[in-house]
Amino acid sequence: MTTAAPASEAARQHTLRERNLELVARAVFEAPGPLSRADVAAATGLARATVSTLVDRLVAGGLLRELPAVGGGRAGRPGVPLVPAPRTVVGVGLEANVDYLGLRVLDLTGDVVAERVLDGAFHDSDPALVLGRLGELARDVVDGLRAQGITVAGARLALPGLVDARAGRLEVAPNLGWSSLVPVPLLGLDLPVEIANEAKLAALAELAGPVPGSFLYVSGDVGIGAAIVVERALFLGERGWNGEIGHVVVDPAGPRCSCGAFGCLEQYAGKEAILRGAGLPPDAPLADLLSLLADGGRAPSAGASAEAERAGAAVRTAGRALGSALADFVNLVDVSTVVLGGAYTDLLPWLRPDVEAVLVERVLAAPLVRIDVRAAAAGPQAALTGGAREVLRGVLGDPAAWV
Amino acid sequence: MTTAAPASEAARQHTLRERNLELVARAVFEAPGPLSRADVAAATGLARATVSTLVDRLVAGGLLRELPAVGGGRAGRPGVPLVPAPRTVVGVGLEANVDYLGLRVLDLTGDVVAERVLDGAFHDSDPALVLGRLGELARDVVDGLRAQGITVAGARLALPGLVDARAGRLEVAPNLGWSSLVPVPLLGLDLPVEIANEAKLAALAELAGPVPGSFLYVSGDVGIGAAIVVERALFLGERGWNGEIGHVVVDPAGPRCSCGAFGCLEQYAGKEAILRGAGLPPDAPLADLLSLLADGGRAPSAGASAEAERAGAAVRTAGRALGSALADFVNLVDVSTVVLGGAYTDLLPWLRPDVEAVLVERVLAAPLVRIDVRAAAAGPQAALTGGAREVLRGVLGDPAAWV
Repeated sequence: MTTAAPASEAARQHTLRERNLELVARAVFEAPGPLSRADVAAATGLARATVSTLVDRLVAGGLLRELPAVGGGRAGRPGVPLVPAPRTVVGVGLEANVDYLGLRVLDLTGDVVAERVLDGAFHDSDPALVLGRLGELARDVVDGLRAQGITVAGARLALPGLVDARAGRLEVAPNLGWSSLVPVPLLGLDLPVEIANEAKLAALAELAGPVPGSFLYVSGDVGIGAAIVVERALFLGERGWNGEIGHVVVDPAGPRCSCGAFGCLEQYAGKEAILRGAGLPPDAPLADLLSLLADGGRAPSAGASAEAERAGAAVRTAGRALGSALADFVNLVDVSTVVLGGAYTDLLPWLRPDVEAVLVERVLAAPLVRIDVRAAAAGPQAALTGGAREVLRGVLGDPAAWV
Repeated sequence: MTTAAPASEAARQHTLRERNLELVARAVFEAPGPLSRADVAAATGLARATVSTLVDRLVAGGLLRELPAVGGGRAGRPGVPLVPAPRTVVGVGLEANVDYLGLRVLDLTGDVVAERVLDGAFHDSDPALVLGRLGELARDVVDGLRAQGITVAGARLALPGLVDARAGRLEVAPNLGWSSLVPVPLLGLDLPVEIANEAKLAALAELAGPVPGSFLYVSGDVGIGAAIVVERALFLGERGWNGEIGHVVVDPAGPRCSCGAFGCLEQYAGKEAILRGAGLPPDAPLADLLSLLADGGRAPSAGASAEAERAGAAVRTAGRALGSALADFVNLVDVSTVVLGGAYTDLLPWLRPDVEAVLVERVLAAPLVRIDVRAAAAGPQAALTGGAREVLRGVLGDPAAWV
C-alpha cells in the first residue's frame, strides 16, 4: 500500500487534470456566447494559468476555436473569445423508424453538418435489410466527412421500442415487428454506435431549447413513445422501459393494437390511426392531413368540405384519447409540462382544445396547477438531433480522449 | 474573510462531529443485530476512540443502549453489544382517512409503544371535528408517554390526498371532501407535526421489510393511492402529487367518480365499490367480504351461495380494473414489483388471477420481465408505521438535537 502511494498520487493528479479539462470544455460549450480565458477562469474557479494551458490543449485538439481578439477600449489585455470549434469533431444521430430512416450529423457548435431522411414503410420489415440500408447511407456520409479531415466521434441509433442499452439489444419494437435483436452489427459501420429509445433521445434534444427542467415528452408518430425528464435528466425507472404511453388504456372496448392488447392510445392517436380516421391512406404524408385541417378551419358557412370535417373529427378523437392518456401520465408521475413532438408538433393547434379539456376533466391537480401543453422545439426527427448531441456530450465528458 | 476563518473552522469541526454522531447512530440502527464499538468503528471507518466518545454520548442521550458484555472465549476485551434504546425517544404516526382515524407510536427499536384505531365514516366530513377528535386521541397518548419520561420527537399526519408538505397544506382529498386546508393546527397538539400523503408513508413502511429497492406501492381503501419507490427513495415528480392511480381511466364509459371524472379505477376497485358490487353495505367491515369470498372458494358442487358468487364476481371486476391501471403504471414508469397494501393485502388471493392476467395482456415488457405482484408486509394502517418511522428517521438524521 505505502509503496503504491506515489503512483496513485500521480494517477490522482492525472485524473484531476482530465477533470479540469472537462470543466473548461464544458464552460465554453454551455456558455450562451464566446468566453475569454479570464471568463473561463471565473466560471470554473481554476487559476488563470491552468485555464490557459488547458484551453491551449483544447484548441490544439480541435475542440475549441479562438476568434480574433477583441477589446482596446477596456483596461487590460484584449480578450481572445473562445467558442466551440466548427466541423472538427462531430456526432451522428441515426434512426430506424416505421416510416423513415434518418441520419443527422452535428458538430460541436450544434450546427447540422449533414442530414439524410429517407421515407419508407418498415412495418414488419426485415431488420437486416433496413439497418443495412441505413448503414450504407451513414457510411457514405461518414466517409465524406473523414475525407474532409473531420473526426466522427460515434453514433446513437434511435429505435421505437424497448431497448437494453447496456446489452445493445432491442427487446421489442411492435410497429417494426422487430424483437430480440442486436442491431448495431447490421449497420456495418466502423464507428462506436450505441442504441437508445427514440422518444428518450427526442426528449433530450429539447434540452437545447427553452424548455423547463422537468417535462413529459410525447413523440407521436405511427407508434407513440414518451420520456420523463426531471431536473434536466431522464427518469428511466428500472430498465429504461418506461414512457410506453402508446399502450396506455384509452378504452378497453377499443380496437386491437400491434402489441396484442385492446384500446391502446396508438389505436386512436397514432399517426396511421389518425390518417385512417380522416379517410386518408395510412402512409399519406402528414401535409395532406394538415391541408384538410386548414380547410376545415374555415367557418362552416364558408363551405368546409365533408373531407375536411372528417379529418377534423379524426383529430378531435385523437385529441380526446391523447388527453386521457396524458391525464393518467400526469396523475401517476406529477410533471406539469407536456411537450408534444413527432407528428403532434404540427397537429397541436387542432389537438390542443380536446387535449386540454380532458386534462382539466381528469387530472386531480388540475385546479391547482396549469398543465402546460406545448409543441416540441427541436424540429422534425428530433431523435436524430438528440442522438448526435448525446455523442457530443460523451466527447465533452472526456475531452482528453479527443485532443 | 481571513478573520472569519477560525470561526468557520470551528463550525466545520462542529459539523463534522455531528455528522460522525449521525454515522454512528445509523450504523447501530441499520445493523441486523447488536454491534460492539469495534464493529461500529469497522462499519463507519472512524477511529475506535472517536467511536467510543460518540457512543457514550448516544447512550447518555437515550438513543442507544448497552447490553451486558459478551465474550470470554475470543481474544481481546469482551465487546459491549449496542442496540437502539427502547422507550426513550418515540415517533408518532397519525392518520385521518375515510373510514378510520389512527395513531401508532414506535420507539427506536421499531416496537409499537402505543396504538389507537377508531373506525368511522368521514366522507364529506368537517375537518375541524375529525382532526379535533384525532388530536384528542393523540394528546391522551402523548401525555401518558411523557408521564413515563419518554421523549415524543414529533408526528406525521397521513392524509388521503394531494399534500403540499412544505406549506403544510392539504390541497384536496376527494373522498374526505376536504380541500385547501391547513390541518395541523386543528389537531391542537404541542408537538412538531408534518403532513404527508397516506400512500407515500405506507410505501416507506415497507422498507423495514423484505421488499426490493424499487417498487410501486398501491394502497387500496375507499380511495386508491400509490407511490413510486426507486432505489429505496420516493420518486415524487414535481410536487409529490404523483401516484394518483385511483383516478387512472379504466373505462371512459364508466361511472362518475368523486373527482368529477368518469370511469376512474376507484369506481371499480375502491373498497366501497367492491363492497357494493358484492351486495354489501359500503361501510361493511372487510371481514364480511372476506368470509363471503372464502365461501365462494368452495367448489360449486360444494354449494357456493349466490351471495358468495356475487362477491367473487365483484372482486374479479376489481381485479381486472386494477390490472389495467397497474399495466398503465408499469408501462409509464417501468418498475416491475407491485406491492398491494390497504384492503388489497387481504384481498390479494382473490384479486391475483385477474390482476396478473391483465398485466400479461397489457404490459409491453411482460414477455421480458415478470411483474411481481405481492402483498404489503407492513401490516394494517401501514401509513401510521411509515409516519412514525419518518419521525424517527429525522431523529437519526440529527441525533445531536436529541442527546
